[in-house]
Amino acid sequence: MNVKLLIEYDGKDFCGWQRQPNGPSIQAAIEDILSQTHGRKTTLYGASRTDSGVHARGQVATFFTDGDKAPGQWTSILNYHLPRTIRVLSSEEVAADFNPQKDAIAKEYEYVILNRKHASSLNPRAYFVPDSLHWGRVREAMPSFLGTHDFVAFQGAKAELKTTVRTITDFGLYDRGDGFFAFRVRGDGFLKQMVRTLVGTLVEIGRGKRDIGDVSRILQSRDRRQAGHTAPACGLTLVRVYYPGE
Amino acid sequence: MNVKLLIEYDGKDFCGWQRQPNGPSIQAAIEDILSQTHGRKTTLYGASRTDSGVHARGQVATFFTDGDKAPGQWTSILNYHLPRTIRVLSSEEVAADFNPQKDAIAKEYEYVILNRKHASSLNPRAYFVPDSLHWGRVREAMPSFLGTHDFVAFQGAKAELKTTVRTITDFGLYDRGDGFFAFRVRGDGFLKQMVRTLVGTLVEIGRGKRDIGDVSRILQSRDRRQAGHTAPACGLTLVRVYYPGE
Repeated sequence: MNVKLLIEYDGKDFCGWQRQPNGPSIQAAIEDILSQTHGRKTTLYGASRTDSGVHARGQVATFFTDGDKAPGQWTSILNYHLPRTIRVLSSEEVAADFNPQKDAIAKEYEYVILNRKHASSLNPRAYFVPDSLHWGRVREAMPSFLGTHDFVAFQGAKAELKTTVRTITDFGLYDRGDGFFAFRVRGDGFLKQMVRTLVGTLVEIGRGKRDIGDVSRILQSRDRRQAGHTAPACGLTLVRVYYPGE
Repeated sequence: MNVKLLIEYDGKDFCGWQRQPNGPSIQAAIEDILSQTHGRKTTLYGASRTDSGVHARGQVATFFTDGDKAPGQWTSILNYHLPRTIRVLSSEEVAADFNPQKDAIAKEYEYVILNRKHASSLNPRAYFVPDSLHWGRVREAMPSFLGTHDFVAFQGAKAELKTTVRTITDFGLYDRGDGFFAFRVRGDGFLKQMVRTLVGTLVEIGRGKRDIGDVSRILQSRDRRQAGHTAPACGLTLVRVYYPGE
């Protein structure tokens, strides 16, 4: 039986989704419980390899089980053993050939900036930018990211990929009050650190250090050195992975 | 010079606003820095004595200083020494006779409930209610709290007060998604644990354990034993204190 999990986590204390030799990962935390429960190595397949420090409200992952437990039971079993910083929100049976990564048709991320003079005592999951940003400029620059482009200039680290062309279908900015601003971006897929580099570039435009037209120029350059800094991982959350027929 | 501070804090690790012999308080944390900076005991007067575990985004407090520093400087001085769980958002000079508690004309609180099967890995500042609530019933009951009433039945602990009559002017409920629901309540003042008892009563109505008409009956009874349980402090945040002419 193929079981699909919906997972939420605070990435702060993890070295990312993927199992690493040098630190605790989300995948390993869940996989180890699954392996122990099954009495044999059980692999967990994730939809998105979120980086170290990145959070998720809607990560999707699957594993194969012999089916002696009702699929919905895995939520409680896993939450009982997992640290409080990881919660499984639901578990359900899916088709045997469902692959959370390959079957995904879109992903949605949120990136939160705290733009005010003083850091927050309440929400550490934001990029703290104390210098004043011109949000009108940021909003003006955002539409240049929409559509299909080669985003290689916004790729943080090289990866073995067939193509670096991606399509961004939605890109919104929401003023949440108290200095918190949230970007919401949806696309058919994202390169490594792409959302963070895109946000870092927008912050530089908001600071007035870059022109609004820079976005198109950077995309055309296909050169990572032309893009802005990589905004920190703490502000980024994987919100949702989309599948056909949902 | 009378200086007014706007203060934000995560109440989790504090025994409340007010200085206590048996634990760390927000007042003591700030007062100790003020006293050390001035080289003499300096008293901090707060607008609201938030309980142990209660948070704030807009607590107001004042202290007297000799004026050798620009009033705006106190924000950086205090934030430099304070733990990250307390942030001073602004500091400004106010009239010598301004009293943050007595001059307040209204206060606004937020109470957040997480209503889904599994706790959150991302936001601990919510009352986790795993059993399903009938939010339509909660919404129907809420307007009975509006207006001027003797709220003594919703007072958690006895206090020396001239009157237990209070006026609630606004009471809203917002679905924030992912199972988070936020109450926003504004009134001319609140009795000790009043917001939490009011929320606890609404949760029992949402569970179907109480009638929607109970709110009026409890108010009329003037008896604490008639009201519901006191919802936990972790879900409560002091959002704003209102003053004339703002």
